[in-house]
Amino acid sequence: MSKGFSFIITKKDKKARRGEISCAHGKIQTPAFMPVGTLATVKAMKNRDVEACGADIILGNVYHLMLRPGSDLIEKFGGLHKFMNWPKPILTDSGGFQVMSLSSIRKITDDGVEFSSHIDGSKHFLSPERSIQIQHQLDSDITMIFDECVKYPATFDEAAKAVERSNAWAKRSKEAFVAREGYGIFGIQQGSTYKDLREISSKALIDIGFDGYAIGGLAVGEGQEIMFEVLDYAVDFLPQEKPRYLMGVGKPSDIVGAVLRGVDMFDCVIPTRSGRTAQAFVRPEIEGGVINIRNAKYREDEKPLDENCGCYACQNHSRAYLHHLTKSQEILSAMLLTEHNLFYYQDLMREIRKAIEDGALEEYARKFDVFDENSLQ
Amino acid sequence: MSKGFSFIITKKDKKARRGEISCAHGKIQTPAFMPVGTLATVKAMKNRDVEACGADIILGNVYHLMLRPGSDLIEKFGGLHKFMNWPKPILTDSGGFQVMSLSSIRKITDDGVEFSSHIDGSKHFLSPERSIQIQHQLDSDITMIFDECVKYPATFDEAAKAVERSNAWAKRSKEAFVAREGYGIFGIQQGSTYKDLREISSKALIDIGFDGYAIGGLAVGEGQEIMFEVLDYAVDFLPQEKPRYLMGVGKPSDIVGAVLRGVDMFDCVIPTRSGRTAQAFVRPEIEGGVINIRNAKYREDEKPLDENCGCYACQNHSRAYLHHLTKSQEILSAMLLTEHNLFYYQDLMREIRKAIEDGALEEYARKFDVFDENSLQ
Repeated sequence: MSKGFSFIITKKDKKARRGEISCAHGKIQTPAFMPVGTLATVKAMKNRDVEACGADIILGNVYHLMLRPGSDLIEKFGGLHKFMNWPKPILTDSGGFQVMSLSSIRKITDDGVEFSSHIDGSKHFLSPERSIQIQHQLDSDITMIFDECVKYPATFDEAAKAVERSNAWAKRSKEAFVAREGYGIFGIQQGSTYKDLREISSKALIDIGFDGYAIGGLAVGEGQEIMFEVLDYAVDFLPQEKPRYLMGVGKPSDIVGAVLRGVDMFDCVIPTRSGRTAQAFVRPEIEGGVINIRNAKYREDEKPLDENCGCYACQNHSRAYLHHLTKSQEILSAMLLTEHNLFYYQDLMREIRKAIEDGALEEYARKFDVFDENSLQ
Repeated sequence: MSKGFSFIITKKDKKARRGEISCAHGKIQTPAFMPVGTLATVKAMKNRDVEACGADIILGNVYHLMLRPGSDLIEKFGGLHKFMNWPKPILTDSGGFQVMSLSSIRKITDDGVEFSSHIDGSKHFLSPERSIQIQHQLDSDITMIFDECVKYPATFDEAAKAVERSNAWAKRSKEAFVAREGYGIFGIQQGSTYKDLREISSKALIDIGFDGYAIGGLAVGEGQEIMFEVLDYAVDFLPQEKPRYLMGVGKPSDIVGAVLRGVDMFDCVIPTRSGRTAQAFVRPEIEGGVINIRNAKYREDEKPLDENCGCYACQNHSRAYLHHLTKSQEILSAMLLTEHNLFYYQDLMREIRKAIEDGALEEYARKFDVFDENSLQ
């Protein structure tokens, strides 16, 4: 669609796809996990280390960046890549989700959303046109349309109204998008847990035409079982030849299950946030896949988090040392656990891509059955 | 003195000395600055990056480590080097200073100090014998004697009593020290701002015989002018052929001035603590030597902290980006500013060593006259 922005599928394994996105700042191997860099930083990580984990792309947030440091400043520095010195691709979220979840005193009209900053209460306005303009200032490789997210659970009527408004906003978003070689814009399918609405939403987006399609309104409290039920049909409404992006997902087992259902891209704060709250992800065969390093049982544990992990923390430090750092509230705990988690997530994606290439994703996915839905505290 | 522990002076420039300490875990180029790794971590730094800054040795604290994670646990891991995975030399402070400055409910007798932990109020006891034993458990390359520090200002009588007790404790510390090849023990000169007491303290320590001599009881609020006055005579009471260590110092201008007066080793929390409170040290010709990156004037500043600095932050990021991270309270701000400051301090020591080799330290030191005593907020 957009010139110089492409997606090729190199291998399929049932519904799962192995592919590659090419965009202005480089290539993205899919299925891909995008670390979240909300405020122009992947929290507690140097960019050099984010890259070393294997991330091809990170995510930035219109909502946060328009408040701090402001999109005009970032534009003045030549865009977000240059401002934060991350030369590889960036996808930016449009702010639609954050104005609903973070800001207060919202006034939603067909025109857009008026809201107060969660930082200082100052008044701001976001509309499809304004969000797309900000993403242009940020020089985002992948712009997301500005949509209206409904909370979960939502009645059919609430969800239908949000789909209707989001479709109108999708059209305005596309019209506001300035085409440049290598830059793409993605639509966002909404419709809550209603199959009919997911279909209506998809058709409208496909009519407008986008470079990729996100699935929004999931991972908002419905649980993995319902999410997978929705994905079972929601993905089929989207074009085969375009990348599919499940927003805000998730735990390792969520990601594996979604790839099995045909999803190509993910983003989530779980690996970074967990790194700041003492939780480390490990292969599912170890401790059920999650280690809470604060637990007293690790006090004298000489093993690394995961003996097969190649990250800096696992190559250099014991669980006992990480336990000590965490109990002592040392910044290094957040640094090492975050890096481990991001490395683990990229390892997971490498393994998923390999499994698809080998036609063995279902077998690989079976390892994740041990995951307890409630294992992440 | 101790077998396998040596100090050679390779060059003198008036009172300043260029030297090299050899100890169990490696060599230390002097004059040397030791980053403080209180709780088995140099705060907000990976060991790999501490080493890359050029540090030959770091400091650990008996007081903190005996409380968390406990010296028995560290011994079980084979010592502090192995527990924290820092293979190079470590000096440990004996706890004498911290029991006075951090703990509460102290009872001091000739035997030792009973105190309550600043963390949970639990009761603990430190004596010369216990402190030296803990430093043995930590496998410290350089053990410090357990002494009594007086507050500043102290009357002559208060200071004299502390010197008397410290001399007795110095003897007990030396007796408790288990000699091993490459491991050394340093005495600590006390005496507040009283020349006679500094002389008495030194003579007693020299009689006992140590591998190096620290100057304690300075940088406790007396100010640079008085500190330099004391150093002018205090250093002369110490042996020429042993390393001299000025404890808890200091700002760059303090260090340069102390090296001019014959000091070889330093430790201080200033570069690390400042990194967590938005302050960056730069060459004195830039902004007077200290940048408070929170200042609004850096909001759009595209320059690095210091164009001639080789640290990761200066090689990769602008002041504007660091300003944004700091205003946003991002962990990455503490990480980047700490690394910059430690790199700056090691650069300072490299320049000082070079200036001594070139016989040009006085000229080099003149740059630091621009330092305002009150420039560090």
